[in-house]
Amino acid sequence: MKLTKIRLYVEHPLGQGQILPLVRAQAHYLFDVMRRRPGDSVLLFNGRDGEWRASVAEADKRGGALEVLEQTAAQIDPPDLWLIFAPLKKARTDFIVEKATEMGAARIIPVQTDFTNAERIRQDRLQAHAIEAAEQCGGTFVPEVADLARLDRLIDAWPSDRRLMFCDETLAGAARGLASADRGKWAILVGPEGGFSEPERARLSTLPLAYPVSLGPRILRADTAAVAALTLWQIALGDWR
Amino acid sequence: MKLTKIRLYVEHPLGQGQILPLVRAQAHYLFDVMRRRPGDSVLLFNGRDGEWRASVAEADKRGGALEVLEQTAAQIDPPDLWLIFAPLKKARTDFIVEKATEMGAARIIPVQTDFTNAERIRQDRLQAHAIEAAEQCGGTFVPEVADLARLDRLIDAWPSDRRLMFCDETLAGAARGLASADRGKWAILVGPEGGFSEPERARLSTLPLAYPVSLGPRILRADTAAVAALTLWQIALGDWR
Repeated sequence: MKLTKIRLYVEHPLGQGQILPLVRAQAHYLFDVMRRRPGDSVLLFNGRDGEWRASVAEADKRGGALEVLEQTAAQIDPPDLWLIFAPLKKARTDFIVEKATEMGAARIIPVQTDFTNAERIRQDRLQAHAIEAAEQCGGTFVPEVADLARLDRLIDAWPSDRRLMFCDETLAGAARGLASADRGKWAILVGPEGGFSEPERARLSTLPLAYPVSLGPRILRADTAAVAALTLWQIALGDWR
Repeated sequence: MKLTKIRLYVEHPLGQGQILPLVRAQAHYLFDVMRRRPGDSVLLFNGRDGEWRASVAEADKRGGALEVLEQTAAQIDPPDLWLIFAPLKKARTDFIVEKATEMGAARIIPVQTDFTNAERIRQDRLQAHAIEAAEQCGGTFVPEVADLARLDRLIDAWPSDRRLMFCDETLAGAARGLASADRGKWAILVGPEGGFSEPERARLSTLPLAYPVSLGPRILRADTAAVAALTLWQIALGDWR
């Protein structure tokens, strides 16, 4: 019987001959849930060293160990791109984190805007979601999910060398001028479903490196807009070119 | 108190002075759930006549009626674009239908492929999902959701005047040649998560108007790929240009 492929994110450095001790939760997953036995293969990545094949060296209810055998894929880092969004209901927030991971964002920043319902987020849960998305989509990089920030403070402290693409439904023409913009450090800001407040709009307009883009003639939900904006950016400036 | 905006899809023709009788479920929603009273406004669309403002003319537990007052938005039809995809688990299939509606597909065709798990779909439920997505995203068009078709039969009967963009993870370069392709009738085929079978690949390669495109260096889930592919097409050939 062919075993389902397992890809696991680990924090340990990866390299030939490394021995990885397993914590109890990992051992439970590998040996009780997935029925792996000594000698079986597992794919590992840690966000830095690419993907490696390891085999079960020791299986134990309380732990066990893996031996790292050979590299199976090179590390692929995404462009230096942040995705900034206002959290939605739980399932759609999870969805945005999953999609941003698959689409190649390097950092995910949930923001509180004037018209965001003050939903709390669980940063640790969202970070675990990003890890799971990377495990499942074959990625070797896990974006960092930041703590909830206030949009006005984020803009006030905006780094002078980072460009910002933001989605403006009043524009015609998808990405006028985007393809000829400099690559380098970027962020995408997906507006909250209630729109920006006037003070937020005024603040955004003070950013010298802001690029408004249109996402077509229909109104998109924020989770759809996140994937569409990431696609647009990746085609124009990112690693889909 | 400001009432939440209500947008309803109806099948009735819309035009100034039209009286729309309400069926019991609509009356229940408007009067019991949303607490609308005679004189209150509701926005209506039917997929053909744009968006209209109507007011409650008569409220009744078993029915009632709306009077259509004025057009509030012109009809916007999407390009003649089909989205073809292999159904996934229920929530992700629902998601693809919702996203395809927002992104401007004209027709949504779920297909059974050689490597699709033979999940059944409920066409009526998916169609209702497309209607709800159009109601919520301000659209005036509702794509038709087709019954589950077999991919091999769909390809064998492929219309000679319809181009097909399909996502091929072995390619480099997002959309080579797409922007210079003819507009007109198109379809996007998003591959099943298990990939295409060899017979399916062979069949696809016989289509004279097929355009393979790449969706970047990371592997995308089928629902992500659907939104990304729709974005790519809309930018190159659709109504986002």
